[in-house]
Amino acid sequence: MLIRDALPADWPQIWPFLRRIVAAGETYTWDPDVTEDRARALWLPEPPGRAVVAVADDGTVMGSAKLHPNQAGPGAHVAGASFMVHPDHAGRGIGRALGEHVIARARADGYRAMQFNAVVATNTPAVALWRSLGFAVLATVPEAFRHPVHGFVGLHVMHRRL
Amino acid sequence: MLIRDALPADWPQIWPFLRRIVAAGETYTWDPDVTEDRARALWLPEPPGRAVVAVADDGTVMGSAKLHPNQAGPGAHVAGASFMVHPDHAGRGIGRALGEHVIARARADGYRAMQFNAVVATNTPAVALWRSLGFAVLATVPEAFRHPVHGFVGLHVMHRRL
Repeated sequence: MLIRDALPADWPQIWPFLRRIVAAGETYTWDPDVTEDRARALWLPEPPGRAVVAVADDGTVMGSAKLHPNQAGPGAHVAGASFMVHPDHAGRGIGRALGEHVIARARADGYRAMQFNAVVATNTPAVALWRSLGFAVLATVPEAFRHPVHGFVGLHVMHRRL
Repeated sequence: MLIRDALPADWPQIWPFLRRIVAAGETYTWDPDVTEDRARALWLPEPPGRAVVAVADDGTVMGSAKLHPNQAGPGAHVAGASFMVHPDHAGRGIGRALGEHVIARARADGYRAMQFNAVVATNTPAVALWRSLGFAVLATVPEAFRHPVHGFVGLHVMHRRL
């Protein structure tokens, strides 16, 4: 598996699993009916933001991540990031590899910390992964996510220094 | 003083004080050199977002606020909001009047809570105002704001139910 910068030509492989993850409505605060144009604009950020992909030896895109300033101007030294792993390739360490890559990339880009604004509290694999990669839960915004199965659940604000 | 929905014709009165507040770099995580077009797009949100203005009897716009979903999709029941008072009219209760108006408006719009993602910890008048209007600090993201005088200071995540 290789992790490299995303190219425009990768989008047709990203969109099917991104759409599936967003439509499920269990982990992302995105419109579940997001259009492809809007999704592309949200997932492939303007510089200094960047997106990366995790690619199998046969060229299959198995996951993707984006990295960008979490706030603008005087807050731009704290990174934000988002991660999606193709559900058909879950459980193979792709999320962890993307996380480690993005943390290193953020450090190289000069960010001083990384913050996730909205980690769904019931997404226990993600919460455990980020804890294992050095993130702490700074706060849980109560009932901030309407989960299709669990109802109103919390959104974690997670953070680590770089 | 009247608080009403912002109209496109209000923008020429909003932009001078918005630019001044953003350029000072002490309270907003915006690019201090934001262009007017970008600022207009950021401040006057798409529906269901809305912007309001506080207008003096003589038609002077003394402050403005915007209200919008803080997250999309399954997070859209929590409002976000931003407030600016013309520095020449500070200390006259305009921020409080805007805050009370926006809280009532958010409740009427069906939001269940309101969250501020990035209240600069050194902006003590704002922090005190929001506390007095029922907000609590859920977390302070350490050193997340580069203040031109105080250096790296925290950003409060503030929240209240509606």
